[in-house]
Amino acid sequence: MHITIDRSHFLTAIQSVQKAISTKTTIPILTGIKLSVTEQGLKMTATDLQIGIETIVQKEQNGETILQIHQLGSIVLTAKYLGEIVRKLPQATVDIEVKQNYLTIIRSGTSEFNLHGLDAEEFPRLPQVTGNQVFSIPSDLLKDMIRQTVYAVSTEEIRPVLTGVVWSLKEGNLKFVATDSHRLASRKVQVEAPEEMQLFNIIVPGKSLLELGRLLSEDDTLVDIVVADNQVLIHMGRTQFYSRLLEGQYPDTTRIIPNTYKTAVQVKTKDLLDAVERAALIAKDNDNNVVRFNIKQMIIDITSNSPDVGKVSETLKPIQVSGEDMIIACNAKYLIEALRVITSPEITVEFTGSMSPILLKPLDNPGYLTLVLPVRIY
Amino acid sequence: MHITIDRSHFLTAIQSVQKAISTKTTIPILTGIKLSVTEQGLKMTATDLQIGIETIVQKEQNGETILQIHQLGSIVLTAKYLGEIVRKLPQATVDIEVKQNYLTIIRSGTSEFNLHGLDAEEFPRLPQVTGNQVFSIPSDLLKDMIRQTVYAVSTEEIRPVLTGVVWSLKEGNLKFVATDSHRLASRKVQVEAPEEMQLFNIIVPGKSLLELGRLLSEDDTLVDIVVADNQVLIHMGRTQFYSRLLEGQYPDTTRIIPNTYKTAVQVKTKDLLDAVERAALIAKDNDNNVVRFNIKQMIIDITSNSPDVGKVSETLKPIQVSGEDMIIACNAKYLIEALRVITSPEITVEFTGSMSPILLKPLDNPGYLTLVLPVRIY
Repeated sequence: MHITIDRSHFLTAIQSVQKAISTKTTIPILTGIKLSVTEQGLKMTATDLQIGIETIVQKEQNGETILQIHQLGSIVLTAKYLGEIVRKLPQATVDIEVKQNYLTIIRSGTSEFNLHGLDAEEFPRLPQVTGNQVFSIPSDLLKDMIRQTVYAVSTEEIRPVLTGVVWSLKEGNLKFVATDSHRLASRKVQVEAPEEMQLFNIIVPGKSLLELGRLLSEDDTLVDIVVADNQVLIHMGRTQFYSRLLEGQYPDTTRIIPNTYKTAVQVKTKDLLDAVERAALIAKDNDNNVVRFNIKQMIIDITSNSPDVGKVSETLKPIQVSGEDMIIACNAKYLIEALRVITSPEITVEFTGSMSPILLKPLDNPGYLTLVLPVRIY
Repeated sequence: MHITIDRSHFLTAIQSVQKAISTKTTIPILTGIKLSVTEQGLKMTATDLQIGIETIVQKEQNGETILQIHQLGSIVLTAKYLGEIVRKLPQATVDIEVKQNYLTIIRSGTSEFNLHGLDAEEFPRLPQVTGNQVFSIPSDLLKDMIRQTVYAVSTEEIRPVLTGVVWSLKEGNLKFVATDSHRLASRKVQVEAPEEMQLFNIIVPGKSLLELGRLLSEDDTLVDIVVADNQVLIHMGRTQFYSRLLEGQYPDTTRIIPNTYKTAVQVKTKDLLDAVERAALIAKDNDNNVVRFNIKQMIIDITSNSPDVGKVSETLKPIQVSGEDMIIACNAKYLIEALRVITSPEITVEFTGSMSPILLKPLDNPGYLTLVLPVRIY
């Protein structure tokens, strides 16, 4: 293998695929990026066996030469060194040549690195995901859906399915749901999908989605999604992202979302977030981060106290209140995380009872819903 | 004590004095900031007993009212909570009122915090540094002197004096020197001082100087420095910084700075830094971070190798070379840290022998000198 490649395009590609590499791996080949040169260009692959990222650097881009191929072939190079070296190389182009025994020469200007590579044949093959179950979604919308649900996944391995976000698709309605059994987040959007296409119980690990979220661009370029038996594949232009799915049956969450409420308040999202964040400064020092809400006529009182530090009281004037007076408490951290991913300026908070879920609904986005369970006040 | 204070001025003051608080302290009163209201304004103090920072918020600034005093008095409040609370308060002004049992009410808009304070009488008094041994130096110059020397202090407590930077002053020449016995940095400047004023063996802890460096502004406002028996006091406008001095005799470093060289090369600082940084990517994986220099005629070869990773070779064309050919090796980390604080575009590197110091001298700044000891090449 022997190529000359534009340094900045090469670095971007390294940084993309590098996201798939686990810093904890003890298997040497998995610390590497596989470079594979064919007539089509340079294919780069990295994986931690849970997720895999593959990208192609083509010979030309917008009429500019990015890659010159002198000899086909492949090699695996340690991602950490490759990334650091390419970032610091002095010239705009890099020459990479594989010699005997996987010794790889990286040249740029007056710099020459000799790195010990590994046999590309030893690199795990990414799964071949095929199937006609394909749907499309704008990149920024998918990024948003991930951001608005993934925070609610469980970090505990007791019920593994809860560490994932469950996807479903029916009649073009794509829905993501996540819950750790203390709170729940749900986002529904309309996507481009074959009319008859249906998906149920597709559980994508939260960790995979965090990495996917970092890869997705902030624009509305369409990405294609293929779901196979135990894999999901996301096509983003020249880059592909694979993730294993979680096995098991995700619990039915529709039952726990109440349809009626006892008290509903309409507030400015930022006012509520600011008030709860201030209350949380004291709450984080007590058990369970508890903040207490007292809704009485047109006033919401938010309080928290810690015997060691002191107490805080916030008075919030809602835009509108309906229903009965209410005293309720919940974990401030859950509320803050739910409020931070809401982009709508106004929300409705629905209280369904002192020991029943608190619902947060953005006024201008009926597809998004988040729910926090209250805690008992002693 | 009862005041109303501008939130942003208050926050700036908190952030200044907070730098003196150790996160590791187990003494409750030292986690606090002392607020003390007199007719002159609000004095705020924090200390970890090694350093102390004191600042005054005056009633007016540029004709604007910053502080209204309703009642004199004093209190100690935990810095961590005070800082976080004031940062998040909703309004432009904050009302602080101390009630019985040191209970302190902080109000802003519809927020009200009740914090348990501590008795200000229990707060350690900062030393009264007096003396006519005063000299002045522009803030940005002092900041620069600190930056260019403090990186070379020792982090090991075996020889405590080496954890400090030694100051001396003679005939208006202020000199800072630091060494950890593997490298040395020395900076000399002309300052405004009484003609007869002399200072010797003033050893300021490196940790104190790091904090002082963060407090110093980037402009040329003059700061006044008073040195007393075991203290140094820096006056920066409304803020004062105290540090204890280290006891003991700093070694005589003048002997180890050679006056002659065998080989001298003149290079662009950035070219040398970039080349050594690249060589260090491989060097950091071998013992002692070793990079090797081979100077032969008009070429400098910089190499490093690690049996596990591979090797690197850099070719640097110097602007000028004089003296004999030279093969020498040193710790890349020391060289990088020395080169990073040099602002001059060109430097002279003087090699005094394969086991004698390597000197780095900025071409346009004769007051600065840094020295790195080589390592033996096997």
